[in-house]
Amino acid sequence: MIYLDNNATTRMAPAVRDAMLPFLDECYANPSSPYTFARRSALALAQAREQVAALMACEPSHVIFTSGGSEAIHLALHSACSARPDTRHIITSSVEHAATLAAMEGYAAAGYRITKLHVDAAGQLDWDEFSAQLSRDTTCVSLMAANNETGVRFPIHRYAEAAAALDVPFHCDATQAIGKIPFRMESPGPTYVSISAHKFHGPKGVGALIAAADAPVTAMISGGDQEYGRRAGTENVAGIVGMGSAASLVPSGLETMVQTIRPLRDELEKQLAQLPAEIRIIGQESERLPNTTMLTMADHPSEVTIARLDMDNICVSAGSACASGATEASHVLRAMQIPEEYIFGAVRISLSRYSNSNEIYTFTECLGAQIRVG
Amino acid sequence: MIYLDNNATTRMAPAVRDAMLPFLDECYANPSSPYTFARRSALALAQAREQVAALMACEPSHVIFTSGGSEAIHLALHSACSARPDTRHIITSSVEHAATLAAMEGYAAAGYRITKLHVDAAGQLDWDEFSAQLSRDTTCVSLMAANNETGVRFPIHRYAEAAAALDVPFHCDATQAIGKIPFRMESPGPTYVSISAHKFHGPKGVGALIAAADAPVTAMISGGDQEYGRRAGTENVAGIVGMGSAASLVPSGLETMVQTIRPLRDELEKQLAQLPAEIRIIGQESERLPNTTMLTMADHPSEVTIARLDMDNICVSAGSACASGATEASHVLRAMQIPEEYIFGAVRISLSRYSNSNEIYTFTECLGAQIRVG
Repeated sequence: MIYLDNNATTRMAPAVRDAMLPFLDECYANPSSPYTFARRSALALAQAREQVAALMACEPSHVIFTSGGSEAIHLALHSACSARPDTRHIITSSVEHAATLAAMEGYAAAGYRITKLHVDAAGQLDWDEFSAQLSRDTTCVSLMAANNETGVRFPIHRYAEAAAALDVPFHCDATQAIGKIPFRMESPGPTYVSISAHKFHGPKGVGALIAAADAPVTAMISGGDQEYGRRAGTENVAGIVGMGSAASLVPSGLETMVQTIRPLRDELEKQLAQLPAEIRIIGQESERLPNTTMLTMADHPSEVTIARLDMDNICVSAGSACASGATEASHVLRAMQIPEEYIFGAVRISLSRYSNSNEIYTFTECLGAQIRVG
Repeated sequence: MIYLDNNATTRMAPAVRDAMLPFLDECYANPSSPYTFARRSALALAQAREQVAALMACEPSHVIFTSGGSEAIHLALHSACSARPDTRHIITSSVEHAATLAAMEGYAAAGYRITKLHVDAAGQLDWDEFSAQLSRDTTCVSLMAANNETGVRFPIHRYAEAAAALDVPFHCDATQAIGKIPFRMESPGPTYVSISAHKFHGPKGVGALIAAADAPVTAMISGGDQEYGRRAGTENVAGIVGMGSAASLVPSGLETMVQTIRPLRDELEKQLAQLPAEIRIIGQESERLPNTTMLTMADHPSEVTIARLDMDNICVSAGSACASGATEASHVLRAMQIPEEYIFGAVRISLSRYSNSNEIYTFTECLGAQIRVG
């Protein structure tokens, strides 16, 4: 099997699994319990918190473990909006992850004005549009560091700085960035950052909200002192330990991204250009994640391409695994005003540190064979 | 080590861990992905959903997997309140879990009138108080099936029926009941039921809200079609598989509860009566969970008792592991109007299907030795 859908989820690193195993077995104490046996659980949580803090260049107390990226995104927006009850304006983009856009629907229903920044055909924001919309009365800004479908990066720190200058909280959805490009908390910089372990070879069902110093956090799940009272509920100890372990592996993974994966992805795109079809690489002219290629072909519907590749044991997708299926048109491609005949032919190839050149050659061979038979 | 704190959390059953392992390893696909490799993840989710549905005697589609009991409780209350926006009155009890009581603080701040039903010295509700408070204008009722600290059970179905007769949604926090006493969805019965896997030998970080047929659910975490659009976010596949496996083990665990654990707990209480101290068993005159003994001693502060038992390698707690520590007075004992001199001497012993009589004898011996040296 050739797995080329690492923006959907990644294979857990063996070291991550090994770190988790004791906490699925003999180390089962509730970390909040008042005896020595619980100390090991509590210490493991503390270590994982330090590992995530080291990855993000923040204090351990800034790390709030959640059940994943979606919860972290909702918690960030809930916190920002709760802290500024006299304002009713959120700026985001038209290409955010479904979790952000769904939250926006809720805020719109609650009377918020939602500015969804446009992107151009290269997937890039318009600084002037942002500047014109941003004011001291903006409740918060929420922008992704990199797009899950196209890999197109936003210059987050520039936008975060502008928001900070007006004391407007800034949330960055960094779920797709972590493990693929360097990303660190900076000052001035994002107020909140959402991350998800399973996107960087950690377990599913665990993520974190990073809240900068003094960032207000209003719990969505309350009732216990876990996570400094900012997220109640018995901790997913094994999952959190796994996330910490995965965080500690990111630096070496980033080296692989630079040295191996980006060249491999670029090679893939060269090979695609030689196939006998009109293939567009979406966002190719933009700064992108080093592991992502979003291609589209006219007259080759995504579902068919994906199903045929599946028969060759190759796993790729049309975009977000969080959307309801490959047959729904991507809101990201729509926002980029990709021509209609291309919009239903999108196929995303997303590599990981475990990808290799044989997989890429096999992929382009199989895709080429498909194209030739029509 | 002797672990007698199973209401805080339980040891994961070996079969549960074994069921989870493939999903920490080779079966890593995102269940929403559109290829064969993802089918195994999706099927595993479906199977776990059926296992939990079988346990609860409901339809698989009534099961909404969450990150645990606390999230399920918040989701139930959020759903009930969202569905009845013209009402502002919640009935609960004064001895609920902290997650419920913290949610109530939020609703009180939002203008809801909160009725916290009193309990008597035996931990029991007053039907007349409930009846007098319940009306068609009550937004929802939230009552626990069994108390986490004392094990005292509430006659949930009687209360649920009364609420149903007035079309008032009823949420039952059944986190402590599952695996200890039979509990099934009935009609008329609870509209929502919250459960947590790690309380019945499943993994931490996963739970479920059971929503009866036609019960409205308003997602707190939105943005994806997971859980039928009622709870977004990439599924914690391994955790959910573990919860399903743990659910399938509950029937045999319940037999052990009846045949072995309840007699063992009763034997423990007999032995406690013979120790040279004035020991009260809280709620002993009530119907209780078969695994729980909450004892209190005047002049023996909980922290000291627990710390000394810890030195004997015995794990017990003063009550909820979710509260901030043993030194805070239990709101449950306060609500039961336990005399002040006893309230700081509470020690909870909670057994599991893995408990045995040697552990109980050792515990009473060690406690007796403590009492004798003063």
